[in-house]
Amino acid sequence: MTDNKDTKPEDTADAADPTKLEADLAKAKSEYLYLMADFDNYRKNAIKERSDLTKYGSERFVREFLTVFDNFERALETEISADNVESFRAGVTMIAGEFKSLLQRFGVEEIKSEGEQFDPSKHEALSSEPREDLPAGHVARVFKKAYKMHDKLIRPAQVTVSTAPPTVN
Amino acid sequence: MTDNKDTKPEDTADAADPTKLEADLAKAKSEYLYLMADFDNYRKNAIKERSDLTKYGSERFVREFLTVFDNFERALETEISADNVESFRAGVTMIAGEFKSLLQRFGVEEIKSEGEQFDPSKHEALSSEPREDLPAGHVARVFKKAYKMHDKLIRPAQVTVSTAPPTVN
Repeated sequence: MTDNKDTKPEDTADAADPTKLEADLAKAKSEYLYLMADFDNYRKNAIKERSDLTKYGSERFVREFLTVFDNFERALETEISADNVESFRAGVTMIAGEFKSLLQRFGVEEIKSEGEQFDPSKHEALSSEPREDLPAGHVARVFKKAYKMHDKLIRPAQVTVSTAPPTVN
Repeated sequence: MTDNKDTKPEDTADAADPTKLEADLAKAKSEYLYLMADFDNYRKNAIKERSDLTKYGSERFVREFLTVFDNFERALETEISADNVESFRAGVTMIAGEFKSLLQRFGVEEIKSEGEQFDPSKHEALSSEPREDLPAGHVARVFKKAYKMHDKLIRPAQVTVSTAPPTVN
């Protein structure tokens, strides 16, 4: 907490002296005004900083993204012929890998969903499907992967959920 | 500014009354303590918020990035044969376009450099080259594009700079 020695009641001994009291009161009021001015400045800076962080929050990510995007654009400039189809494909696959490692550097990771028990906090059920190889209520198929950033879920998975297969009569 | 009616000197008329003075002093001190506590709370919240904004600042961008990345990964899963080379290429070109419009939504735009007068604040000179079609000191070729985010340069261009062509003897 902030230093509050000025408010300790150690000077109450001569509290009855009006001159001293007046001086103390003036001092207390002026300290209040100073603190208020500090607070106002702090608040203004915090608001400015928050707005900058919101506006440019993705700058670091975007800058690294652009490096990979350069390679992507360069790859798309190549003429494709029968001879280089495979190298073109290898090139774009490599770029996808660079995007993936960019995500990792920013703490973004895929959350495995397939075969897991259905959990509404990270799975969005699109439909259900009878499955023999899975207990009911598990993730049968993943249409969209779930991702977390550090320890926060930033995108739920879109999945189908297993049900017991129909019993044969 | 914060309301400061409590600190106006309107009650100085009976300032000599020690009881009143003591009460005023106690009030002023307690108001100081309340303000200090408010300030401390505000500061703690601001620090927490700043750290969250720094850690998750790119979250919004990353989330939209993932949507495009899904399509990219899906495109890479297709088998390429002689028949679908062109549609594969069209697919990845479309994805590059989606990345580009994602950048635009976040205020990120390419800054045109080619043919512009060399400007060290946004161009990084890699080398120079004699050019007949450009005045000296202009951007001859762009190896890396410059990008701005809103009104802020986030990446300088890497370029070669034109020089006058050698005079023929």
